[in-house]
Amino acid sequence: MNLIEFVLAKGCLILPTQQLSTFTAAETVLEELRRRQPLTQCITNSVVTNFTANVLLATGAKPAMVDIVGEAGIFASIAGGVLINVGTPNPEQRLAALEAAAATESWVLDPVAVGALPIRTTLARDLLVHRPAIIRGNASEILGLAGASAGGRGVETTDEAESALEAAGELARNYGSVVAISGVIDIITDGTRVARVTGGHTVMTLVTGVGCSLGSVMAAMLGVTDPFSAAVAASVLYSAAAERACEVSELPGKFAVEFVNALACIPSSELDSESRVAFA
Amino acid sequence: MNLIEFVLAKGCLILPTQQLSTFTAAETVLEELRRRQPLTQCITNSVVTNFTANVLLATGAKPAMVDIVGEAGIFASIAGGVLINVGTPNPEQRLAALEAAAATESWVLDPVAVGALPIRTTLARDLLVHRPAIIRGNASEILGLAGASAGGRGVETTDEAESALEAAGELARNYGSVVAISGVIDIITDGTRVARVTGGHTVMTLVTGVGCSLGSVMAAMLGVTDPFSAAVAASVLYSAAAERACEVSELPGKFAVEFVNALACIPSSELDSESRVAFA
Amino acid sequence: MNLIEFVLAKGCLILPTQQLSTFTAAETVLEELRRRQPLTQCITNSVVTNFTANVLLATGAKPAMVDIVGEAGIFASIAGGVLINVGTPNPEQRLAALEAAAATESWVLDPVAVGALPIRTTLARDLLVHRPAIIRGNASEILGLAGASAGGRGVETTDEAESALEAAGELARNYGSVVAISGVIDIITDGTRVARVTGGHTVMTLVTGVGCSLGSVMAAMLGVTDPFSAAVAASVLYSAAAERACEVSELPGKFAVEFVNALACIPSSELDSESRVAFA
Repeated sequence: MNLIEFVLAKGCLILPTQQLSTFTAAETVLEELRRRQPLTQCITNSVVTNFTANVLLATGAKPAMVDIVGEAGIFASIAGGVLINVGTPNPEQRLAALEAAAATESWVLDPVAVGALPIRTTLARDLLVHRPAIIRGNASEILGLAGASAGGRGVETTDEAESALEAAGELARNYGSVVAISGVIDIITDGTRVARVTGGHTVMTLVTGVGCSLGSVMAAMLGVTDPFSAAVAASVLYSAAAERACEVSELPGKFAVEFVNALACIPSSELDSESRVAFA
Repeated sequence: MNLIEFVLAKGCLILPTQQLSTFTAAETVLEELRRRQPLTQCITNSVVTNFTANVLLATGAKPAMVDIVGEAGIFASIAGGVLINVGTPNPEQRLAALEAAAATESWVLDPVAVGALPIRTTLARDLLVHRPAIIRGNASEILGLAGASAGGRGVETTDEAESALEAAGELARNYGSVVAISGVIDIITDGTRVARVTGGHTVMTLVTGVGCSLGSVMAAMLGVTDPFSAAVAASVLYSAAAERACEVSELPGKFAVEFVNALACIPSSELDSESRVAFA
Repeated sequence: MNLIEFVLAKGCLILPTQQLSTFTAAETVLEELRRRQPLTQCITNSVVTNFTANVLLATGAKPAMVDIVGEAGIFASIAGGVLINVGTPNPEQRLAALEAAAATESWVLDPVAVGALPIRTTLARDLLVHRPAIIRGNASEILGLAGASAGGRGVETTDEAESALEAAGELARNYGSVVAISGVIDIITDGTRVARVTGGHTVMTLVTGVGCSLGSVMAAMLGVTDPFSAAVAASVLYSAAAERACEVSELPGKFAVEFVNALACIPSSELDSESRVAFA
């Protein structure tokens, strides 16, 4: 009698095997998100709240910025996914973030400037205890977070996603997380599998909140699929939507408007994840 | 000698009777707002501050986001109207909100997610003591607020404005408020009169801050007319401006831009309140 | 042996004389900013964080909204320039502002509504002790700040920049600051020199954050030039970019988008500072 037969004999539910080894393509994830409209909680920095909410609404999720002590945990326990972004972590938000992280397993950590600034570095270390489903940041932040959790490796100033791949793998294995490194090519790893997502455009770095809102879309997608598929699907969606927006304008003011439009109307077939994603 | 003759004989001012029974059409309210540019204070959630300020400026009001303890009350006492929106009520803002509500009668309560989350539900109950001129929310929020004030009716999950009409009437009579329920058809009641406003477009639900900023426009209009006329006029303006914006785009990014444009340039005649408003 | 020969004989560096008397034209300042991309810290109000970050990114700077106690001072000591705007000064931000102002000389004070509201008036007085490189506000705010620092001159309600010129000169001499008064014509003075910058468009007053973000661009330019040249160059850039944006639209929603676009793509030659700036 193997394990599955044993569990079935006891009348237990079998956990969906997709959580362990299968992969859901971005096209399917986006369709599911639009169909199920997951409630997505954001505890995020004051610069990007508006853009993040508009991105989530356009993508098809239901955003809620519940970042108050006494409410953040309650809400996290019913949300489909939660984003915790430590970009402007005032004392109230720090406590609310810890409250939310303790209340759900379906959450994304965005370690903005972790490693470089002390308050948020301590906060991120405390948050890691609650094992985020996904960690999303640029290479410096992933290196900073790995350094913080290892007790002092420090931050490197490079911007190349590849330079943070080893640290990402370590974080992934230590905390059971999927780690997404944003860069010209996005890299997503669960410590075993590695996916690289190409596409997008440099104007994305000239609009504040593009990276932060990517974390929120990953949180929304946690409401409909597993962490690895969610992180890859969000990256693919951003690449495809950015390219569509750039057909109208490559200037940052207008690009930001058209990017939101693209998220709202892009057909899932246009994600073309087969050509955008390479697995290693 | 009747009351009016008595008061006139004493040299007193007669209160404008419109406060009691007459109604000012949206066209006139908008013209007055543009002429008098009322100072409009907003204590609102962190997601929509920017959009709200831009909406108020475009409409013709002068916004000021004074939400600090020690300043909120002082400012409320000189503002033409005050919006208190409990969407992200951190401790400082909660105290500032109570300070402002105590300092003016010319204020709007937006009970975001009241009934569903505890901190803001308690806050809203404390704020009600100061008798808002207008309460604006969706059906769930109006039901949640009525439940909170009645001690536990709870929140229903419906989205139909009609389902909250009875609760709205009760709130209106208990607190001397005008209650505006946002929905596909907006309903406004003072506990006796009921107005229904048609128009608008579903894309409005895909742009964060459309509902919240509607509350701020009602607050601005309190600076130039009575609460019932203000609530109806703001609803009519939003319907007409949204339709104008949709002629350019029905996608949320561009719609948001064009909606602000429409508020800035719509001729008052285009409000066409006679065809948009039905009284019962 | 004169002072310079004395210093050279000791092998010391000579301070660049431009700090004392020369002037760098806006064209050159913008080119330097785009080349060196100065790290620009903003401690600013909750209404304009997003717009401010997008303006800085479009102009070519690297924004960071570090406004937390325990981080603000550390970051200020490495930033090229720091903006402190007291528009929504909650207790945490007040302490963070003082921490940052103490840690750098390269900072801009924007005294939003100072003179009119008590908490921020006290804060601004405390901040002045740290001698801002630039003070930027409208006429009422400059008069309010001068009144606060002089112990009670009070606020005048005029909007004409000229009416605040005397107060600006006093502030400049007392605190070693450059003072920039925003108005139809912007006036910049260091207490000796006076520059007037023409151009721009009235739609700029209908978009929230245009004035606040101007302060942030001055802070960014402090990272590449002296305070007087920085303040003049930022004003010139805003006039030229606004005129370019108005060629597309004079309505506030679309103007805001096109203004960001203009900042990102305007050739430095289009600033035409010779025709925009008059010195007295």
